[in-house]
Amino acid sequence: MEAVPVPDGSPFPVTNLPFGVGHPGDNRRRAWVAIGDHAIDLDGMHHAGVFDGLDLEPGVFADPNLNRYLAAGPDTWRAVRARVREAIDGRLPTDREHVVARSELTMGVPVAPTDYVDFYSSIHHATNLGRMFRPDGDALMPHWRRVPIGYHGRTGTLVADGTPIRRPVGYRLIDGEPVVGPSTRLDIELEVGTVVGVGNEIGAPIPIGAAADHLYGICLVNDWSARDIQAYEYQPLGPFLGKSFATSVSPWLVSFEALEPFRVVPPEQEPPPAEYLSTDAPWGLDLHLEVWLDSAAMRAAGQSPVRFSSTGFADMYWTPAQQLAHLTVNGASTEPGDLFASGTVSGPTPGTEGSFIELSANGDRPIALPDGTERTFLLDGDRVELRGWAGADPATRIGLGTVAGTIIEPHPAPHQPHGGQ
Amino acid sequence: MEAVPVPDGSPFPVTNLPFGVGHPGDNRRRAWVAIGDHAIDLDGMHHAGVFDGLDLEPGVFADPNLNRYLAAGPDTWRAVRARVREAIDGRLPTDREHVVARSELTMGVPVAPTDYVDFYSSIHHATNLGRMFRPDGDALMPHWRRVPIGYHGRTGTLVADGTPIRRPVGYRLIDGEPVVGPSTRLDIELEVGTVVGVGNEIGAPIPIGAAADHLYGICLVNDWSARDIQAYEYQPLGPFLGKSFATSVSPWLVSFEALEPFRVVPPEQEPPPAEYLSTDAPWGLDLHLEVWLDSAAMRAAGQSPVRFSSTGFADMYWTPAQQLAHLTVNGASTEPGDLFASGTVSGPTPGTEGSFIELSANGDRPIALPDGTERTFLLDGDRVELRGWAGADPATRIGLGTVAGTIIEPHPAPHQPHGGQ
Repeated sequence: MEAVPVPDGSPFPVTNLPFGVGHPGDNRRRAWVAIGDHAIDLDGMHHAGVFDGLDLEPGVFADPNLNRYLAAGPDTWRAVRARVREAIDGRLPTDREHVVARSELTMGVPVAPTDYVDFYSSIHHATNLGRMFRPDGDALMPHWRRVPIGYHGRTGTLVADGTPIRRPVGYRLIDGEPVVGPSTRLDIELEVGTVVGVGNEIGAPIPIGAAADHLYGICLVNDWSARDIQAYEYQPLGPFLGKSFATSVSPWLVSFEALEPFRVVPPEQEPPPAEYLSTDAPWGLDLHLEVWLDSAAMRAAGQSPVRFSSTGFADMYWTPAQQLAHLTVNGASTEPGDLFASGTVSGPTPGTEGSFIELSANGDRPIALPDGTERTFLLDGDRVELRGWAGADPATRIGLGTVAGTIIEPHPAPHQPHGGQ
Repeated sequence: MEAVPVPDGSPFPVTNLPFGVGHPGDNRRRAWVAIGDHAIDLDGMHHAGVFDGLDLEPGVFADPNLNRYLAAGPDTWRAVRARVREAIDGRLPTDREHVVARSELTMGVPVAPTDYVDFYSSIHHATNLGRMFRPDGDALMPHWRRVPIGYHGRTGTLVADGTPIRRPVGYRLIDGEPVVGPSTRLDIELEVGTVVGVGNEIGAPIPIGAAADHLYGICLVNDWSARDIQAYEYQPLGPFLGKSFATSVSPWLVSFEALEPFRVVPPEQEPPPAEYLSTDAPWGLDLHLEVWLDSAAMRAAGQSPVRFSSTGFADMYWTPAQQLAHLTVNGASTEPGDLFASGTVSGPTPGTEGSFIELSANGDRPIALPDGTERTFLLDGDRVELRGWAGADPATRIGLGTVAGTIIEPHPAPHQPHGGQ
């Protein structure tokens, strides 16, 4: 294969090689690897012999998700990545016909999780939200520092980059009275998702020291949240309809192998973690994350999106390895393609928060937009894009890409047959 | 086909015809219909032409779960059930070779849900638990009567009848101090699960009046619960490791068509439900449910199991139709095979509670067993079986069958490589 050009500053240099699933217009969703502004058809490379001799099932890259590939395990992931690298460098014969412009691909959610878990692992976010949701209680509950708190989210409403987000309807308090209607406090949560490659059997917890044998990589996650619905419903069993309407997942899974240069020692934990949560391995990640927004009016006026937040992931309190060990310590099984998200990534200072409820001080501090309006929570037509990359040095950093969604109007009458009044 | 005999009192007379998936020793899990002490191979009937002319996909009954069949919709469900009835009555040609003794089948979980939701819809259970978990607060939170409270459970740990239940390990308070160890307050929750047949698209809620077009049937669910782990972790995001280690599902799905004679008007709701939760259709069900237990010592001594609880489902506050309407009012999609459980079914009087934490008054009122021991929470070796049927009259009632599990010892060292110390 001729070399594929990689523009300066591309999120996807040859040191990244993220995998995703998509199709170039033929509706046959299959696996691709991103390189610069292009993507290479992994099933095509498989047929062309690039992976000959590796322990790969036939047709594994023709699947509509990466689950079966992830199940192959870390030795295979490393070997496949090395072959892809050789093919891109022109050292293995493949075919130019397998290369497309990334812009031609319609991408899907890269995995089909059996379970999606949402953690709550930023100490700044948990403190901020605790103050707002429980003004009379402890901002940070005592067990927050003992265990990575999490809950199960809705797997069936994980949606791909670009999927419109319909404003949810539900019960929320208006002047203290419960009323059914569209959420007026629609928010985002900036998160990083971790994908399980190799699962575990039920009853056999994953020791934290074995996390690297199980975890494949990461993506961006926007855990859209209806704060008014969430506040009304969440006691005592946790968030439900305030979260379950949609969660956006970025298309390109970045492997922990590619992230190796960006691993950092996470913050010291006090009290020290229990043995099942203890490891000396540096499971912190030097990621930089941003939230951008434009309104429908801004887009119509040709105005550029505004950056609302710029934050870091390196000081997250609980790491992906700790989350995996916690998730399975009770014997719960995991499956290839399972996804767990970090929880909202917020920093300690203004402009580093990963949600509008924090950025707007619970709605008390509106933020001006170039179209002359202000934002606290999201309005119909608003488009939110999350961006992320690993590493501070532009010469060596690698990107997570982006994930975006635009808010659309609520269903007119959820209690009537579809579309009716 | 010759007539299949149905013993008097069988849970599976010809008016029931529940479907499940299993295999008779060949590990090829496929669909079966139960009749008396026998089961008929639905894939075999399909090949024999019993379903000719119906809108069924090829091989639909050879799948390892019923999802694809459920997606076919209520007209097909009715037509297939009528043909099965005709075949059993000997009016359609099929083949004796497709009939096996039910005891020969190893049954699985009948569906592969994309999402599993657990509701909390018994007013007696919610009141009992509220008193125990929040002694200083309102037993029943004000919004409990407005919305069917629920949360997402772990789909990957739904297990089949007979699967051993490993005692979970996790953080719990010992004398007020958080310590990691095996749960000492291991419990059950007696629940009824509802299965979605036809799903809905994201953004398009299911109106409660259309529930019958979407809901297929019911099964028994045991939502095993580690009360100590749950109490430590559940604030503010709800139950997680206290529930996610295992949930047992009964093998035979009983259709709402078979349940038609057992529909009843549910209790009047105060305040009246919102429009999206309102229907005149009688979505209550006249079910009778029981919890039985035997210990390892009882089994060794040849002693019969003891009935711990006998309760009814007809006075559940929130119905399956209301749960479905609530689940989707925010635009969340559902998929064929999705499962949602009722929440623990408890009645108002002693001996009608659906969990040991209630039956034992939070551990304060031990119950004597014939082996000379007492029970509050479950010990290793205890086997719990849930039983259920619809209708009070033995001549016409139909069974849900049973679902059982036996507690086994905890993993010795979850933080070490498997099996190590």
